Amino acid sequence: MVNSLLSKRSAFAHNSILEEEKVADSIKKRGGRVIEINRGDPAIYFPTPKYTIDAYIKALKDGKTEYSRDAGVIPLIEAIRKRYMHKYKVNSRTEDIIVTAGISEALMFINQAMINPGDNAIIFKPFYNQYLSQLKISGGVPVYDNYDEKNNWELNPESIKKTLKNLKSTGKIKHTKYMLITNPNNPTGTVLGRNTLKEIVDLANEYNIFLISDEIYDEIYYNGASFTSLSQLAKGIPHMILNGASKDFDSTGFRIGYALLPEKDNASEELKSKLAEFASVRLCVNTPAQYAFAESISNSTAHEAAISHMVSEIEKRVNAAVDILEENEKIKVIRPNGAFYILPRVDFKSLKIKDDHEFVDKFLREEHIMLSRGSGFGAESHVRVVALPPKDILEYAMDKLNSFCKKYSK
Amino acid sequence: MVNSLLSKRSAFAHNSILEEEKVADSIKKRGGRVIEINRGDPAIYFPTPKYTIDAYIKALKDGKTEYSRDAGVIPLIEAIRKRYMHKYKVNSRTEDIIVTAGISEALMFINQAMINPGDNAIIFKPFYNQYLSQLKISGGVPVYDNYDEKNNWELNPESIKKTLKNLKSTGKIKHTKYMLITNPNNPTGTVLGRNTLKEIVDLANEYNIFLISDEIYDEIYYNGASFTSLSQLAKGIPHMILNGASKDFDSTGFRIGYALLPEKDNASEELKSKLAEFASVRLCVNTPAQYAFAESISNSTAHEAAISHMVSEIEKRVNAAVDILEENEKIKVIRPNGAFYILPRVDFKSLKIKDDHEFVDKFLREEHIMLSRGSGFGAESHVRVVALPPKDILEYAMDKLNSFCKKYSK
Repeated sequence: MVNSLLSKRSAFAHNSILEEEKVADSIKKRGGRVIEINRGDPAIYFPTPKYTIDAYIKALKDGKTEYSRDAGVIPLIEAIRKRYMHKYKVNSRTEDIIVTAGISEALMFINQAMINPGDNAIIFKPFYNQYLSQLKISGGVPVYDNYDEKNNWELNPESIKKTLKNLKSTGKIKHTKYMLITNPNNPTGTVLGRNTLKEIVDLANEYNIFLISDEIYDEIYYNGASFTSLSQLAKGIPHMILNGASKDFDSTGFRIGYALLPEKDNASEELKSKLAEFASVRLCVNTPAQYAFAESISNSTAHEAAISHMVSEIEKRVNAAVDILEENEKIKVIRPNGAFYILPRVDFKSLKIKDDHEFVDKFLREEHIMLSRGSGFGAESHVRVVALPPKDILEYAMDKLNSFCKKYSK
Repeated sequence: MVNSLLSKRSAFAHNSILEEEKVADSIKKRGGRVIEINRGDPAIYFPTPKYTIDAYIKALKDGKTEYSRDAGVIPLIEAIRKRYMHKYKVNSRTEDIIVTAGISEALMFINQAMINPGDNAIIFKPFYNQYLSQLKISGGVPVYDNYDEKNNWELNPESIKKTLKNLKSTGKIKHTKYMLITNPNNPTGTVLGRNTLKEIVDLANEYNIFLISDEIYDEIYYNGASFTSLSQLAKGIPHMILNGASKDFDSTGFRIGYALLPEKDNASEELKSKLAEFASVRLCVNTPAQYAFAESISNSTAHEAAISHMVSEIEKRVNAAVDILEENEKIKVIRPNGAFYILPRVDFKSLKIKDDHEFVDKFLREEHIMLSRGSGFGAESHVRVVALPPKDILEYAMDKLNSFCKKYSK
């Protein structure tokens, strides 16, 4: 008999969504329909643009089915380079870009490449859950700061300064490998202000912290917001931008992301070479999808039409959902201006519901609507809504959320 | 200034091929042509079958561009289940199969899920280089046994028994997480005998070692060989089969592999759940390619035509190359009967060439033909030839190899 084979780190490979999925599956098996507002997948509700699909088909017909260049096919690298040049005035070279199987794989490489057991990384609550899993799988220890709910989920440079000072005074700063921000944010749906970003860059510079900005939603902002990329402000400061095909380009199932490290300091050069080596070990990512994504980026006219339609729809859907949630006395909600998530705070206690886990579970079982638990994002008092379904379905779901809360208020 | 950010483990993410690729690139830049017989990519020489491409295109047109089920789309899981049922009489359930981004990703998950720093795994020299990199990246320590060059690169059960006994007597067996074999083998091109496999299964059972068999070339055998899958012999014994789309199905650039764990003992159940959790953390692999691969497997008539053509061509090419290499006095070569690799032993010393590194480098610079160094596979006295190019090109390359050796013999 073979005994347990699992490693200690494997405990951190855990996705709480699997529990809810089991409940949803059993509802579906009994013939029920489940409204899933728990997964951030635009391609379910907005078909991937035809010009992208056509490019994908062309790549297949052209026989682009071989292993590709490890760090990404050159036409894609070029498309990414030009995007950053035109959009953010960032100069970059071929070797500054590593194409990965989604940002997921980039996070795995980053943590494997940078984190020794016990090393720290600064991440902000609420966080995208993979930041924490990948960090911990590599033996890292998170140092938390917070997106400030009292200030529209904005980051607080004063608080970040305290965090960094504290790391310095305890000697831990030497082992703090990166600070990771998400802009626009998942799960809060907020866009960071330019001044906040500037202060963060200055702090990173002062404390010699490598900055990473996950900007996968960088074309999805609305309600009057404007977006600044870290790459515009961090010139001369070691940093990395994460981005990809999934959200702006509505191609989640392609699994194509990338890391861009435009700086030439020694640490950045060493890191990008090493990420390329990690890419080389696993050979490459899906080849024809890389060509499709190259065209997604390069055909700016077609992309502009697709993204502007999608963003204006998302704006309407998010606002319609928030409008309804604002009527709920048990909920406090901040109106997002980016991505497509809403993270309402729910007064579980007054509903006599133990926590977000029980809330999401009950709501799913009783109303057949699937939310995400806030605790998966480090936000235990919240639930996450994905505001992507058509307005009528989303409004139905939010009405149900309100009546569910009313029912439990009694 | 940010100091070095790299982790200790990152030293193991290293692919020596990058050095040769730089040389090749410079030759190409000067207008030269390089014959690349270093990468095991059938899709370069045999177009991916049209029925597979058609299925891929259909999936795209049907809008299969969303995130998929984490561990793989059900039609693919079903196709894999049926393949193993029909081909190897293996019963399996949905949860026994985890679809990954090539075997590469499966290896990453396996090592992350199983290996604590300092844990052992038994691997055999020569090995596919990723086995070692992924094991070491996860902090594991290889225990080597050998494919026996004196016995046609067959595994030697007596030697394996010694290795296991030694691990037991030193108390290390408790921390030996798996024994990994490759059949047919990369880089030796040999198919393991049924009796050898039986003895290995018995030993794994006796010493309670979890067995893994990488069978990515399981339809590519010839020269009269017959193939036995570990899954046919290891019923009741905890084990895992690795396989995928790349080789038999000539779809390297899809990056679709899978792990099959058909057993229901506690260790196997726990491990497959954990691998599914690792899959869940990174969301999914390329969705439309999964549908294409499902059709690759399911359309057995179309597949049979494609694979029988490919294997008969590979047989001719391998034999033609070996025939020429046998004329070379500085080389000892074992004729492969599986996969598409040849691993000749080269008498570097009598050529006054320091090692495989220098040999491959000189041969590339002088003849513009790119081999792989044996040392990347733990075979320091060898070089690896990929016998996939058309016969005339391969014969030209082998003639050049012979004349190169002659030149340096003087």
